[in-house]
Amino acid sequence: MNTDMSASNERERLVALAMRLIEERGDTVTRLTLAQAAGLPRARIESAFPDETDLFDAIVENWFSGHVAVMDEVVASDLPPNRKMYEFFARRFNLNRARYRADPAAFKVYCELGAVHFEHVRSYVDLADHYLCEMIAHAQTEGAFEGLAIDEALSLINQMVMPYTMAEMLTYMDDRLSEAKLGRIVDTLFAGLSGADGGARGVRGLRAA
Amino acid sequence: MNTDMSASNERERLVALAMRLIEERGDTVTRLTLAQAAGLPRARIESAFPDETDLFDAIVENWFSGHVAVMDEVVASDLPPNRKMYEFFARRFNLNRARYRADPAAFKVYCELGAVHFEHVRSYVDLADHYLCEMIAHAQTEGAFEGLAIDEALSLINQMVMPYTMAEMLTYMDDRLSEAKLGRIVDTLFAGLSGADGGARGVRGLRAA
Repeated sequence: MNTDMSASNERERLVALAMRLIEERGDTVTRLTLAQAAGLPRARIESAFPDETDLFDAIVENWFSGHVAVMDEVVASDLPPNRKMYEFFARRFNLNRARYRADPAAFKVYCELGAVHFEHVRSYVDLADHYLCEMIAHAQTEGAFEGLAIDEALSLINQMVMPYTMAEMLTYMDDRLSEAKLGRIVDTLFAGLSGADGGARGVRGLRAA
Repeated sequence: MNTDMSASNERERLVALAMRLIEERGDTVTRLTLAQAAGLPRARIESAFPDETDLFDAIVENWFSGHVAVMDEVVASDLPPNRKMYEFFARRFNLNRARYRADPAAFKVYCELGAVHFEHVRSYVDLADHYLCEMIAHAQTEGAFEGLAIDEALSLINQMVMPYTMAEMLTYMDDRLSEAKLGRIVDTLFAGLSGADGGARGVRGLRAA
């Protein structure tokens, strides 16, 4: 038990060191670099992270732990569907924005790493989609998103809130993103998203005026 | 006149060559590289492009000429506001998608260059915003987007259709973007976007269920 505890503590300390190195160097770290920086034998690092990919997974897990906590908390709340969906997006957006503003350069590095190693990030995207499907189903019992299959609504909602979920967006449009706008977008979804054909695609081509 | 014509032709040929070089090399080109590739004295290139930035502007102009033609054509049409807005976004999306699918690697290079040299791209974004403001004002005379200032509606609409206007998006979610979804998004905007407070932001915090 004590050995497990200290092994777990050491792993946490190594992840924290790896993230500090990423932020300082502006690039990912290998177990070899981490061993050198920690002044530990490589075998000790390899016992904490048997594969190179385990180190990156641990870093991603650390990065997303706040997001997972937010999602769990929002989903467990008794808010009505529109409030719940807003908080679901707004609280993670706030978390990202606080990190971005605290250290824009480090934030960009994490965004680049996440894009390059997207397979490590995918399970968090899948978790968010899972929760969003639950919220959509709940909202549909109260009359929203009528006539849309859950996966259709999921894809459309994800596309329409994308500036608030793609962390990279902060790096070039922070000043144009706000909770007030996100609130209007969620209001728009609940007021207007359905399977009804409003005619925007039409059936005819253009005619000159 | 003949001299102007042939100077203009040579400039077009040089822009075409510069774009071929960009696509082959996966990086931007300087006037020096262009001179070497064209087998022309550097002075001749400099007469066509007095500043380095003139070459890049000419490349950007070439890239966006199709977008400008689409926008002019759609804005001049007599379509109703929802149809017009759909075509305004869909036709440029189709243009980008055709280019992306024809040569994904070259498309990525242009996206990267556009991001790095965004100041050259800005005037095309501003033109699109100008036209979109006209469309919003027209739509408002027919009852859409009630209670929103034009610039508020502009920002919200741009955010909600972003996956269809940011060319980069095609490079990692082409399979999830479609005209059918864009049509539903525009329908959602016309059915649901307004200045009315639908309550998504709420006034209370979370309570556990």
